[in-house]
Amino acid sequence: MRATLELGEELGYARLSIEAVAARAGAGKHTIYRRWTSKGALFLDSLLSLNEPGLDYPDTGDVIADLRRQIHTAVDLLSRPPMGPLYVALLVEAQHDPQVADALDERFIAPQAEKTIARLERAREQGQLAPDFDLDLAMAILSGPLYFQHLIARRPLTHDWVDRLIDTLFAGMGPR
Amino acid sequence: MRATLELGEELGYARLSIEAVAARAGAGKHTIYRRWTSKGALFLDSLLSLNEPGLDYPDTGDVIADLRRQIHTAVDLLSRPPMGPLYVALLVEAQHDPQVADALDERFIAPQAEKTIARLERAREQGQLAPDFDLDLAMAILSGPLYFQHLIARRPLTHDWVDRLIDTLFAGMGPR
Repeated sequence: MRATLELGEELGYARLSIEAVAARAGAGKHTIYRRWTSKGALFLDSLLSLNEPGLDYPDTGDVIADLRRQIHTAVDLLSRPPMGPLYVALLVEAQHDPQVADALDERFIAPQAEKTIARLERAREQGQLAPDFDLDLAMAILSGPLYFQHLIARRPLTHDWVDRLIDTLFAGMGPR
Repeated sequence: MRATLELGEELGYARLSIEAVAARAGAGKHTIYRRWTSKGALFLDSLLSLNEPGLDYPDTGDVIADLRRQIHTAVDLLSRPPMGPLYVALLVEAQHDPQVADALDERFIAPQAEKTIARLERAREQGQLAPDFDLDLAMAILSGPLYFQHLIARRPLTHDWVDRLIDTLFAGMGPR
């Protein structure tokens, strides 16, 4: 997995092959294929090997402050090397490899969503969220705009932009 | 471009090559390469050749009704064949080809964003939006959740889900 990260940063993940990773790791191609059946599977284990505790949620009792802090950390990690380009490569593999998509969801996206929803449930109990806020929509509403800004609009994910986003989402688009 | 659409649906865009498109179109590989320098460029022209007038915005005077109608049409087009898989393939190409990303932005994403923002500006003037709603965030907030649901969570984009999303975005996450 270290060989994957090194080569990914040198060549870009789009041009990385399992053969090249095997050569860099001093292992046979078949040894690598026995453990990882696809580029996507290798990328996912490499991402998880970075083991970032920073993606956990603080709970200071102020949900807006806690969302800001967690999302600042997440965008710093996921929009810059080493995690950033690897995560994008993994999302690309997931678009045409359903096994990778399922594994990515199960091992990375769903656990993150659970933490977010648990934090928001406490906030709702404490009256810091609209009482009828639909938690099923929470991940799409909170993280969708970040994916859009990073991958579709390709604009920088600054802390200031994240703060404006959170404030706007809490205030709502409608007239008051 | 018809050959691209046919082969894309038969083989999947990930496995499509410019050689195969040339063969299907009865043209030489070099003829195709002279016109389209990359798979991404070919995909973009093929997408635009579908020329969907349905992505325009109605203006009935009710911004929520108009957003619903436009987004229902957009998700029906962009999450199903023929446009859906081609659009995903194009977004994938854009992740490792900055020329494709720029062209996609200029010719498809930015013009759509302009229409959305023009419709929301009229709504804001008519008091149907929060007076301080930040239009710079509008595309990330409105379309980010759709990309998330379709590409990251890989869940169906139903009209009911879109309606719940719009209602939640207008109401806001915060307590009232």
